[in-house]
Amino acid sequence: MAEYPEQIERLSDMFRRLDGIGKKTALRHAFSVLDMTEDEVRGFADALVAAKTEICFCEVCKNISSEKICPVCSDPNRDRSVICVVEDFRAAMAVEKVREYRGLYHVLHGVISPMKGVGPDKLTVKELLARLDGGVREVILATNPTPEGETTAIYLSKLIAPLGVKVSRIANGMPVGGDLEFADELTLRRAIEGRYDL
Amino acid sequence: MAEYPEQIERLSDMFRRLDGIGKKTALRHAFSVLDMTEDEVRGFADALVAAKTEICFCEVCKNISSEKICPVCSDPNRDRSVICVVEDFRAAMAVEKVREYRGLYHVLHGVISPMKGVGPDKLTVKELLARLDGGVREVILATNPTPEGETTAIYLSKLIAPLGVKVSRIANGMPVGGDLEFADELTLRRAIEGRYDL
Repeated sequence: MAEYPEQIERLSDMFRRLDGIGKKTALRHAFSVLDMTEDEVRGFADALVAAKTEICFCEVCKNISSEKICPVCSDPNRDRSVICVVEDFRAAMAVEKVREYRGLYHVLHGVISPMKGVGPDKLTVKELLARLDGGVREVILATNPTPEGETTAIYLSKLIAPLGVKVSRIANGMPVGGDLEFADELTLRRAIEGRYDL
Repeated sequence: MAEYPEQIERLSDMFRRLDGIGKKTALRHAFSVLDMTEDEVRGFADALVAAKTEICFCEVCKNISSEKICPVCSDPNRDRSVICVVEDFRAAMAVEKVREYRGLYHVLHGVISPMKGVGPDKLTVKELLARLDGGVREVILATNPTPEGETTAIYLSKLIAPLGVKVSRIANGMPVGGDLEFADELTLRRAIEGRYDL
């Protein structure tokens, strides 16, 4: 042999296409599948296809959704005057988990990155601007505090501010529970700059 | 929201059933699936079902195979007088990769483990004994050098030796490239016991 059956090779090739899976892990996963019942495996296969075919992007905020308009955008209790702009749906979920924010979202599907050839036209910037039709009071730019995230935030603020909409950026500073000894210089500088009165 | 679409939850639940995958990794994998093309995802689903439904156990050696008799057992160039007994198909593949061994295999599908309630009757011991019909000269016991693997090897040797078949056990010792400083006592003791003349 020196090779596994072709079906195992094919399945582990598929596992390798998942984020962060190497050759050995992919093989291990393929073996796990052999240990499942046939019903389980068929359920797995169905779940794969369902996730890909039934999930779309909300027509308003571009977040992933199983309906045309996502639950947040269609919730009458959300504050429609505030839009929180995030890079992807993971970030939207992270903000949502805080259970503090009651406004809407806008998912950019990336950040501006000349290195990767991603310009504003590949993001949902046009769709964001189209939403600023008078009812929106504030746009919170919640892209990540990375160079690309900062660049994108600055780019968006320059586009949005002239429209008379308030633009804010999430704060930088020490993470709660963090240790000053291990904080990087830039974070600490921002934490000091952003100090508030007690 | 505060929850992902149901399809994502369902898919990540399936990923969690794989060996060594936690909640966060499962979610990340589900997101990876969204990034694939629909064709890729359908191919993935097909590969899952194919691996489960088309792979069976070789009628002779009980290794995984896509045919009734596996490529090793049906290869006329393999030495039919030697059988290497391993715990599972991963171990058989590991031996096969050395490209040194030219005999056949026998896959036990586990080891004797009273703790886990696995007795010899749950392994392919009966099938192994049925293969020792005179043509077999040697059985190499290549279960892992763990307590369960050793127990299983001793159990099998007591069954097989009376049949007039030579029984051998893979050697213990220092792994090649290893460091004596970090070797455990038992390994080092076995390495010294098993020393050979230069």
